[in-house]
This record gives sequence, structure tokens and C-alpha cells, in this order.
Amino acid sequence: MMPAVKAFPFTVISHGLAVVALIMVLIWTFHFNLSNSVHPVFMLFGLIIIRGEAIISYKSLPFIKEVKMVIHLALNGVALVLGIVGISAAFKDHNESGIANLYSLHSWIGIGVIVLYGIQWLYGFVSFFYPGGSADLRRATLPWHALLGACVYVLAAANSALGFLEKLTFLQSSGVAKYGTEALLVNFTAITTVVFAVFVILSVTSQPSSDQHHDDYRIHSAK
Amino acid sequence: MMPAVKAFPFTVISHGLAVVALIMVLIWTFHFNLSNSVHPVFMLFGLIIIRGEAIISYKSLPFIKEVKMVIHLALNGVALVLGIVGISAAFKDHNESGIANLYSLHSWIGIGVIVLYGIQWLYGFVSFFYPGGSADLRRATLPWHALLGACVYVLAAANSALGFLEKLTFLQSSGVAKYGTEALLVNFTAITTVVFAVFVILSVTSQPSSDQHHDDYRIHSAK
Repeated sequence: MMPAVKAFPFTVISHGLAVVALIMVLIWTFHFNLSNSVHPVFMLFGLIIIRGEAIISYKSLPFIKEVKMVIHLALNGVALVLGIVGISAAFKDHNESGIANLYSLHSWIGIGVIVLYGIQWLYGFVSFFYPGGSADLRRATLPWHALLGACVYVLAAANSALGFLEKLTFLQSSGVAKYGTEALLVNFTAITTVVFAVFVILSVTSQPSSDQHHDDYRIHSAK
Repeated sequence: MMPAVKAFPFTVISHGLAVVALIMVLIWTFHFNLSNSVHPVFMLFGLIIIRGEAIISYKSLPFIKEVKMVIHLALNGVALVLGIVGISAAFKDHNESGIANLYSLHSWIGIGVIVLYGIQWLYGFVSFFYPGGSADLRRATLPWHALLGACVYVLAAANSALGFLEKLTFLQSSGVAKYGTEALLVNFTAITTVVFAVFVILSVTSQPSSDQHHDDYRIHSAK
């Protein structure tokens, strides 16, 4: 399932899509959306873009493994903090507007994602950074760390699409035009987000751009 | 990114989750949902469950490659037909109820998924079954076929979550209780669907249950 192509072109496309998605969500939040909730901006910037770059970084940066690991850990930490702030903003907005909390699929999956992601980050910190597990433990759990990380990332991306759809459906129930500018903007932001996530996953399933220092990242079960 | 575990336990869990999801969507459609649209049943049974089994079958059945290929092709063909019927049902229901078509993210991604899936199936038929491409072409494109198939499958699963959320949001706008039985049923159907898809993907990223006849399936870029 891993085509023999280099990750580099996928990473370039990913960065471009990230910029486009970020600009679109900023235009939506500060030009269109009357509630001005910062939840979509924080979640998209944190749990999708910075988290995506954290995933890509370990594969594509031309540094030694130890440096890449610190960058990966730090970017993931920033993403986690932005995600927690963004989720708190949603609760704050709901409470101020008298909207019920935690009844929707988006909120349920969102809580699942942030919990799994927190566990994943803590495990990465303790096992791979400080104090660090034994070489055997690291070797045995690294493929699971990468696979679970990719699964949680795909869930986060799918959940961002759920969030865009949910908010837009509410807006359209309140009179926002179904084929209008705001609807098209939100839908294209969601699609750009999903395509970005696809390219992040493609970049980690393809070959490292540098042939050094990735020895322990691509542990294949076929070995 | 591929942990060294056997696919078998993942496939068993997948089959169980498929049965649970199917029972839940049938209860929703025929006991709760007053519109009685068959769209959710056809899509879940076709593009998620049968399609998921088609993906799993190639990896897990204890037959020779040629037999598994025919089963994979046939199951995918059935899934494609069910998907097209299910999408047609959505248009029919919309037109009969005077609801606009193709404005929502769910509908856009759905059209994208069915088109990509149709292309994927036709390519599989022509290249791997009849008349069949050259050995070189098959070897070069098989990893792409598997990767694209997995991507389209994940998109389909994410889109089913979008569909459940969209429909439930409409129902809740019309008075269905936010924490009521129907809401919980729809949300748990969506979550079971997503978890099923995760296990389908886990089963194809893990090791074949039989060690024969899978030689050309796991072409690794690292070779």
C-alpha cells in the first residue's frame, strides 16, 4: 500500500493547501460569521495544520533523528494546546448563548480525538523523549505510535468536516443561502481541509526525501 | 507504519461492528425516521459494509490470488451498484419533498466519492481482470490502486458521518430531542460506522492471515 514515490511533492502541496485553508477560515470567521467564534480557527490551525506539519516534519526535514523528534514533539504540543483552547472556546460560546453542550456527533468525536491525542502526545513524550523507554520498547511501539497518530489525525480531519457541516446547516436553517457565498466558502474550506489531510497521510506513506536518519521510522511488518 | 500483527483479529471485530451498524441503521430507518428514506441503509450496507468486506476479503480469505481477486471485484461491483441506487434514492426523496439538491458538503463529497470509486473499480476491472494490463503495469499500479482505494474508503466513511450528522441536525431543528433515543441511536450508528472503517483499514495495514498468495499485495516502497 505504499507507492514508491518521494514524499517531497506531497509535502509541498500540503503546505500550500494549509495556507489556503487558513485564509478561508479567517475570512469566514472575521468577515462572515456573525458569532465570531474563534473555535474553527483554533481547531483548524492547531489540530489540523500545525498537527499536520508535525506529522510531515518527522518525515521530510533534513535533520538528524533527535532534532526531528524534538520538532515533532514541540509542534504536536503546540497543536494540543491550540486544540484545548479551541474546544474551551466552543464550550464558552455555547454557555454564553444558552446552547446545549455535547449532544452532537461532532462534539463526541471531538472529545474522543482530543483525549486520544493527549494520550498519544504523553506517550510520545515519556517513551521517546524524557525519561525515554528502553530501546526494545521504543522499537516495538513506534509503528503503533505512527499508526495511532495517523488514525487520530484522520479522525480529526473528518471531525473538522463535521463541524463545518453542522455550523453551516444551522446557519442555513436561519436563512443563510444554500448556494450563497458563505455556503460555498465554508464548503470549500472543508474540502481544502480534507484534501490537506489526505496529502499529509500521502506524505507519510511515501518515501523520505532524504535517505538518511529515517532508519527506525519505517519499520515494516514484512521484515 | 505497519505494526507486526496479524490481520485476523481486526477482521473478526470488523464483521461484528458491521452487523451492529446495519441493525442500528435498520432500526433508525424503519422504526424512527418518519420519511423512511432508504438512502442511509443503501449507502451504509453498500459503500461502507460490502465495500469494507471487499477490501478485507483480498487480505484475509484463504484462497489463491485469482479467486480472491474475483471476490474482491464482485463485492466492489455490488457495493458500487448499491451506492448508485442509494444516491439516486436521495435525489428522488429530495425532489418529491421539494428539497434542494447538491448544496451540502455531504452531497459534494458523496458525488466525489462515487465518481472516484467508479473510476477505481473500472481501472481494477480493465487492468487486473479483463482484458488485463501487462505484468509491469499491474505491478507498478497495484500499490496506487490499494492506496487510492483506502483513501476513497476513508472519505466514504467520513461522509457517512457527515450524512448522519446532517440528517440529525435537521431532525433536531424540527423538534427531535437533542439527548433523546433517536439522537443517541443515530450518533452511535455513526460512531460504529467510523470504528468499523478504522478496523477495515487496520486489517489491511496488518499482516495477512495466511502466508501464501499475497506476494504481490504488499509491495513496499522500501524494497
